[in-house]
Amino acid sequence: MLESLKQEVYEANLLLPKYGIVTFTWGNVSGIDRERGIFAIKPSGVPYETLRPEDIVLVDLETGKVVEGELNPSSDTPTHRVLYQEFPTLGAVVHTHSSWAVAFAEAGLPVEALGTTHADSFYGDVPVTDALTREEIESAYEENTGKVIVRTFSKLGLDPDAVPAVLVRQHGPFTWGPTPKKAVENAKVLDVVAEMNYHALQLTRADCRVPQYLLDKHYYRKHGAHAYYGQAQK
Amino acid sequence: MLESLKQEVYEANLLLPKYGIVTFTWGNVSGIDRERGIFAIKPSGVPYETLRPEDIVLVDLETGKVVEGELNPSSDTPTHRVLYQEFPTLGAVVHTHSSWAVAFAEAGLPVEALGTTHADSFYGDVPVTDALTREEIESAYEENTGKVIVRTFSKLGLDPDAVPAVLVRQHGPFTWGPTPKKAVENAKVLDVVAEMNYHALQLTRADCRVPQYLLDKHYYRKHGAHAYYGQAQK
Amino acid sequence: MLESLKQEVYEANLLLPKYGIVTFTWGNVSGIDRERGIFAIKPSGVPYETLRPEDIVLVDLETGKVVEGELNPSSDTPTHRVLYQEFPTLGAVVHTHSSWAVAFAEAGLPVEALGTTHADSFYGDVPVTDALTREEIESAYEENTGKVIVRTFSKLGLDPDAVPAVLVRQHGPFTWGPTPKKAVENAKVLDVVAEMNYHALQLTRADCRVPQYLLDKHYYRKHGAHAYYGQAQK
Amino acid sequence: MLESLKQEVYEANLLLPKYGIVTFTWGNVSGIDRERGIFAIKPSGVPYETLRPEDIVLVDLETGKVVEGELNPSSDTPTHRVLYQEFPTLGAVVHTHSSWAVAFAEAGLPVEALGTTHADSFYGDVPVTDALTREEIESAYEENTGKVIVRTFSKLGLDPDAVPAVLVRQHGPFTWGPTPKKAVENAKVLDVVAEMNYHALQLTRADCRVPQYLLDKHYYRKHGAHAYYGQAQK
Repeated sequence: MLESLKQEVYEANLLLPKYGIVTFTWGNVSGIDRERGIFAIKPSGVPYETLRPEDIVLVDLETGKVVEGELNPSSDTPTHRVLYQEFPTLGAVVHTHSSWAVAFAEAGLPVEALGTTHADSFYGDVPVTDALTREEIESAYEENTGKVIVRTFSKLGLDPDAVPAVLVRQHGPFTWGPTPKKAVENAKVLDVVAEMNYHALQLTRADCRVPQYLLDKHYYRKHGAHAYYGQAQK
Repeated sequence: MLESLKQEVYEANLLLPKYGIVTFTWGNVSGIDRERGIFAIKPSGVPYETLRPEDIVLVDLETGKVVEGELNPSSDTPTHRVLYQEFPTLGAVVHTHSSWAVAFAEAGLPVEALGTTHADSFYGDVPVTDALTREEIESAYEENTGKVIVRTFSKLGLDPDAVPAVLVRQHGPFTWGPTPKKAVENAKVLDVVAEMNYHALQLTRADCRVPQYLLDKHYYRKHGAHAYYGQAQK
Repeated sequence: MLESLKQEVYEANLLLPKYGIVTFTWGNVSGIDRERGIFAIKPSGVPYETLRPEDIVLVDLETGKVVEGELNPSSDTPTHRVLYQEFPTLGAVVHTHSSWAVAFAEAGLPVEALGTTHADSFYGDVPVTDALTREEIESAYEENTGKVIVRTFSKLGLDPDAVPAVLVRQHGPFTWGPTPKKAVENAKVLDVVAEMNYHALQLTRADCRVPQYLLDKHYYRKHGAHAYYGQAQK
Repeated sequence: MLESLKQEVYEANLLLPKYGIVTFTWGNVSGIDRERGIFAIKPSGVPYETLRPEDIVLVDLETGKVVEGELNPSSDTPTHRVLYQEFPTLGAVVHTHSSWAVAFAEAGLPVEALGTTHADSFYGDVPVTDALTREEIESAYEENTGKVIVRTFSKLGLDPDAVPAVLVRQHGPFTWGPTPKKAVENAKVLDVVAEMNYHALQLTRADCRVPQYLLDKHYYRKHGAHAYYGQAQK
């Protein structure tokens, strides 16, 4: 069932170690079939070296129940599910503990847009959520992790398609995109821009945020109807 | 004698270069057979590329004497022995000079629990010991290194099973676990969380320690009777 | 047409991932045939793993129009063109988003000449441009990126042969050289000296710029009629 | 002539890229035959990938003239020669531009002994020289580089066998040892301890230098008649 989605999710999971954004089993990728209302996700705690396409677990979006698969799905499955439910354009979700992004999450700081490398992928700062409360942590923790992300985007008026990344405070990054591959690329970009941002912040105390018109230029050079980067418009 | 333990310790030693937490021969792993009261440890100064399972040295826990092996055991053997004697649940001990952990040991600072990456493996801050005194260094240095670790855990009321890692001040990390493989994984986790912690500390002067209920949630998500991460409970 | 130039530009583009100064497709190399007034450049958004010599696009220097090639040229083509037009000695141009150089570009700081590693390749500080204005960004953005580089060199009285690198503020590095290979080497050197410079700046607040006579010594040890580094003068 | 020395020097040069302490051709290793008064050194500017044992150049210690070899010797040859002349116990000399060591050289700071990792190889701080004067740079620059190293050791009363490393201010590290392999290992250790030291210095303003008795313990654990690390004493 949904063999090609499982294959796609499997391959995207293997990109995490390839891109150097995962240690041990600390990351997972899911992808969704919106028509069927089913998403495919990495099983919990399985090393990438031994992961097989048939290990990918299928989960029902509405009920959150496993519909196919021998293994337990990622313990972060309820977070993925909330993101799919609340952000209806998402095709895939990624969670990692990549080092630079986690450093910002631990410090409780957004990854501000300081340059074109950032603006090419994220249309503005990548926000950091509030810390979860004791109550949120002790009950339905992973679901509440999804909810605090949604609340952050709502409060800041952010479009998840334009800013496909977030830092959960005291925890780490979640990213997303139209496809599993693109969502993993966003996870890598986030870590790279967090690294650049970190070093820029150590070099100067000046406010280095780029102006809105630079965000507009670079983001729309690569996204939307007037994009002119790459070969698509050829 | 104890061929499977020697094989296990041999393989765990090879994980040190694989995980990028060792330079030259600056690391060693041991594992213990509690029933026989014998532990197996890397020989001193032997490069990982030429190490063979039969080079692993067997040491008597009670006397500290070599009971099998042609080579000298690690010069850190007396430290391993004290840890096995004083922390009776340990199945394996690891010592490295991994760069991020050493930086904290040199600065004399604990690796504070700043996020879930930390809490998944360590139930609270990874402590730093006092510096050894002149007398402790000049007599039975390696044994006293073990003792200052035990004293630190005692003074802080820490459970070595819950916090399977320590920084010896001016020196570097020791970690442990139920098996050699798990103890090496803890050595890698410690270096990764030290790296994240370092960058978070440079980004902000705010106190970023996570609250106790987050430690509880993440630590017990992966450990103990109610763990629900991974496939064990399936 | 211009097969050997295309081959040379192709090979130089592959050096970007080899030298670790590119993520995804964030970099491009071009080379010019000055006699014919044609330059060869990487196509836009094509991954290095699948790039072929025949994919390299040929562009007319005077008109900026593609004269051969199925694919769109790099979106940065107008920047390359301005540099070739205004700096007539250039044989090749490189653009990357290498992490250390970008950090300085984001912080709006030049990479100062702090040592012989720098002086061996760059005869003085690598300058940072002004930020582009809203008008410059909204009209002919990539062309204006070239113009702000030229303006910076003119204002500072710099010789582009002696300082074959620049940081475009809020963006990243451009480097150049007599050949595509040499221009890519300059891109790598720039990232390495930016890394060294960053760490030196964190270690001390003293002014560490090297004196002019050290610049003279090291630069002319490797460049010009009296160079005595390497085998050329043998 | 001196085939085995040339082979040894060749192999030690290849360790520089293997250990990740060299970019392009920015490093060189030499070794000496004290009986014949001849040292063997890397040719200038030759990439490590194409270097062959027969390319190694033989130089007369007394005259500084090439006695065998088709290629120009390293431009740093006069520095190596001064070190061999003034430090008569040296068997090999290494020069690199490794990133962490250069950062300290650029900042004009010694690499202080902050831990056992340092003390295992260097019996105290690794010193930084004064900057060369204009006159020293403009005449016999490379020879004067050797002289400022010797002057620094003399002024500080250091034994080059006990501290087999130095930072030349505004330039980078030179290390040495009894053999080419050991001298390259010292170059790697220096870069690793500089990295640890850098991070420790960013973490705290406390003075973290280790006491003399720790230096004594760790240095003499690995060196001299009472060493007990490794297998030599077995």
